[in-house]
Amino acid sequence: MNKFIAPVALEKAYRLLNHGPTVLVSARHAGVDNVMAAAWACALDFSPAKLMVVLDKTTQTRALIEQSGAFVIQVPTVAQLQLTYDVGNLSLRTDPDKLAKSGVELFRFDGHDLPFVAGCSAWLACRLIPEPHNQQTHDLLIGDVIGAWSDTRVFKDGHWHFDHADPSLRSLHYIAGGQFYAIGESLKAK
Amino acid sequence: MNKFIAPVALEKAYRLLNHGPTVLVSARHAGVDNVMAAAWACALDFSPAKLMVVLDKTTQTRALIEQSGAFVIQVPTVAQLQLTYDVGNLSLRTDPDKLAKSGVELFRFDGHDLPFVAGCSAWLACRLIPEPHNQQTHDLLIGDVIGAWSDTRVFKDGHWHFDHADPSLRSLHYIAGGQFYAIGESLKAK
Repeated sequence: MNKFIAPVALEKAYRLLNHGPTVLVSARHAGVDNVMAAAWACALDFSPAKLMVVLDKTTQTRALIEQSGAFVIQVPTVAQLQLTYDVGNLSLRTDPDKLAKSGVELFRFDGHDLPFVAGCSAWLACRLIPEPHNQQTHDLLIGDVIGAWSDTRVFKDGHWHFDHADPSLRSLHYIAGGQFYAIGESLKAK
Repeated sequence: MNKFIAPVALEKAYRLLNHGPTVLVSARHAGVDNVMAAAWACALDFSPAKLMVVLDKTTQTRALIEQSGAFVIQVPTVAQLQLTYDVGNLSLRTDPDKLAKSGVELFRFDGHDLPFVAGCSAWLACRLIPEPHNQQTHDLLIGDVIGAWSDTRVFKDGHWHFDHADPSLRSLHYIAGGQFYAIGESLKAK
């Protein structure tokens, strides 16, 4: 774990996702770890902090979440562009080496037996709130955020600092066909 | 309506939201129009196209949606920074001139009796899918996308063209306290 990582207060955790980044979703069950990318994720409540993510029924990561009841949402960086695309396109079902091939390195935070992806800018540990209708009808998974952390080089004191951080730490915003946008300049309304 | 606006195929409509912009939500009921900002919105399905947005029970716009069964999600631009902040902070309940004060100009698309906000880069007309549990428990509203349009100067042929369009047409990504980020540079994974 790099020395720049620090906890984020749970009531500020929504700010890690508020600007709509594409995220990495990871989960662990019965000795199996997996990581996928998801563009359809957002905050759902401030306090207690909740979030939601859309995950297709065919994904292995979703199966691990529904079996274990837990997952991690993390914010990948521009430096992880190819990793983010690869974990979104390779499948653990057909490619058992998916994580190694994609360059994923996992680490853990004390007290959380979950696979956190190294090199991201923010991490949200979540407990699945079982909602059969949302899961079956909409492929929508809702979680309570039970832990949050950031790389303080880019998110500190409750705010992103993309303007002053290294550009490789900017968030990714996926469109389609391998094309992403990095987050851009800061703007302030009066 | 400006001459650059053209329809977007419904199966490509998710791409209007895929990069996680802050959106404007508008609705009309019984002669009342309102517009608010929302950062917690994302696509929910490709085809038939669906989306979801989190709207607090105290908002007038949500009441109009639940009464009329319809709403518009639109993508505001950097040129609309102050408008976006103002419609997110003024309330029609206490400020009947909210829309005029915020500089909102409304227009319509043929066949849709809904208030579309002029100057945005994309518009998604939606029919509310009534889901009492999601609305009451999570403040989550789900809609079928029944019409989509873009300003072709910045979204054309199923893709955003932020790199080549005027920077004033970039999308806004809200954090907190009046601070937004504009979307940034295009990146392509292999």
